[in-house]
Amino acid sequence: MTSNQLYAQIKAKASYLCVGLDPDLEKIPACLQGEKYPLFIFCREIVDATAATAVCFKPNTAFFECYGSWGWQQLEMTVGYIKEHYPEIMVIADAKRGDIGNTAGRYAKAFFENMPCDAVTLSPYMGRDAIAPFLAYEGKWAVVLGLTSNASAADFELEGGLYKSVISKAMEWGTPDNLMFVAGATRPEMLGEIRSICPDNFLLVPGVGAQGGSVAEVAKYGLNMRCGLLVNSSRGIIYASTGEDFAEAAAAAADSLAAQMRPGLG
Amino acid sequence: MTSNQLYAQIKAKASYLCVGLDPDLEKIPACLQGEKYPLFIFCREIVDATAATAVCFKPNTAFFECYGSWGWQQLEMTVGYIKEHYPEIMVIADAKRGDIGNTAGRYAKAFFENMPCDAVTLSPYMGRDAIAPFLAYEGKWAVVLGLTSNASAADFELEGGLYKSVISKAMEWGTPDNLMFVAGATRPEMLGEIRSICPDNFLLVPGVGAQGGSVAEVAKYGLNMRCGLLVNSSRGIIYASTGEDFAEAAAAAADSLAAQMRPGLG
Repeated sequence: MTSNQLYAQIKAKASYLCVGLDPDLEKIPACLQGEKYPLFIFCREIVDATAATAVCFKPNTAFFECYGSWGWQQLEMTVGYIKEHYPEIMVIADAKRGDIGNTAGRYAKAFFENMPCDAVTLSPYMGRDAIAPFLAYEGKWAVVLGLTSNASAADFELEGGLYKSVISKAMEWGTPDNLMFVAGATRPEMLGEIRSICPDNFLLVPGVGAQGGSVAEVAKYGLNMRCGLLVNSSRGIIYASTGEDFAEAAAAAADSLAAQMRPGLG
Repeated sequence: MTSNQLYAQIKAKASYLCVGLDPDLEKIPACLQGEKYPLFIFCREIVDATAATAVCFKPNTAFFECYGSWGWQQLEMTVGYIKEHYPEIMVIADAKRGDIGNTAGRYAKAFFENMPCDAVTLSPYMGRDAIAPFLAYEGKWAVVLGLTSNASAADFELEGGLYKSVISKAMEWGTPDNLMFVAGATRPEMLGEIRSICPDNFLLVPGVGAQGGSVAEVAKYGLNMRCGLLVNSSRGIIYASTGEDFAEAAAAAADSLAAQMRPGLG
């Protein structure tokens, strides 16, 4: 997927919403608990309910992995379902992988060949080796951790401006067509600094909603001429209701968040 | 597993060898290619051949993940086989995971509950949140990336001494009984600095063999009073031969590496 294709989706839907898929057997509605593949069925219903508003889906691999190979099978089913029915919607595997070159190549194969994901989130700790194998795939994206939304981002990312070094250096490895950065909504003023370092790259922004960030603040500091933002919400959408109306509630929550994005898209 | 139990293994075997399990369908012997679970069968044979010498096995999740849920099933079978037949040998899932608290908890569940791994390698980029959920498991270990063995460790880990900040700060989160650090063999003189920051913690040392590090140099800078080292070799052992004698060749390669460890263990 190219940045033009992504931007076309954003314009068509007047939304830069990314819906995070974090399926949890303890939270999904009782009516799905008896299914053979409950994580997949839950995600499929959420996807169908929010596809009119979302420009991106972000399955979190941990929420599948914790159920072992049965969970992985459902991750594969979920990604396959999205790309079969909504090929125009970006799929980001939120995997935060990061290893030396030959191992990173295996992770790229897992997400780009074994599954048809468009993008993978990656940890930059080990440097270029951990990112380059993903950038070698035509039409695929590396989403590199810059400044994350959690409290302990202060431990190392903020220390000595590490997140700025990461973004500056990673800019040499990719282009605005295959490289984006994670930049949390919980420190919106820093989004402005990040935007000045990478004016043309998309930013994947977690931390709106449950974690306290606001769409208006993110838009203020993060928007660029071609939007340049993907704002993620997971729990606020997928668990908007835990009853039988979970899909309708998710659709309503997605619409409500997307409505907050419209002003900035002029 | 406690550090006492690990040290007892090291003394009993006069070895601090960790055998890395990176099974690759393109490299495993032709005689296994027709198996229903070739990755598992290959790993099982390597494990049986090297268990007399190895104190640790380190399956690399990427090499299973790239084959999808069929690969994950074989990762589960491999870990299950080791802990059933050799419960005294430590199993480190080389996964390099690292995410915010509630997601990190899911990864901990994947490796410590869904599978009986003793330890997981973790990326410290996102700070304490990414590590703490693993330390909450009694008898389990977090293996935090310090200074890795790859060339691009220079991009960020060496920049401003990040690896030293990581090790110093992580020391506040765990103990020598649940926290170790990855410290590559390719920059042995820096192992001495790392040892001075964390005198009592085990170090997991990759980079011997194919990557150019030597056991003697690692021992010189890294040994402590209770050994404190796990030196990993993957390709040098598991692909010592790609013929039908692969298991015997792996055993010989493991013995040869362990023999280099004996002098330092006095």
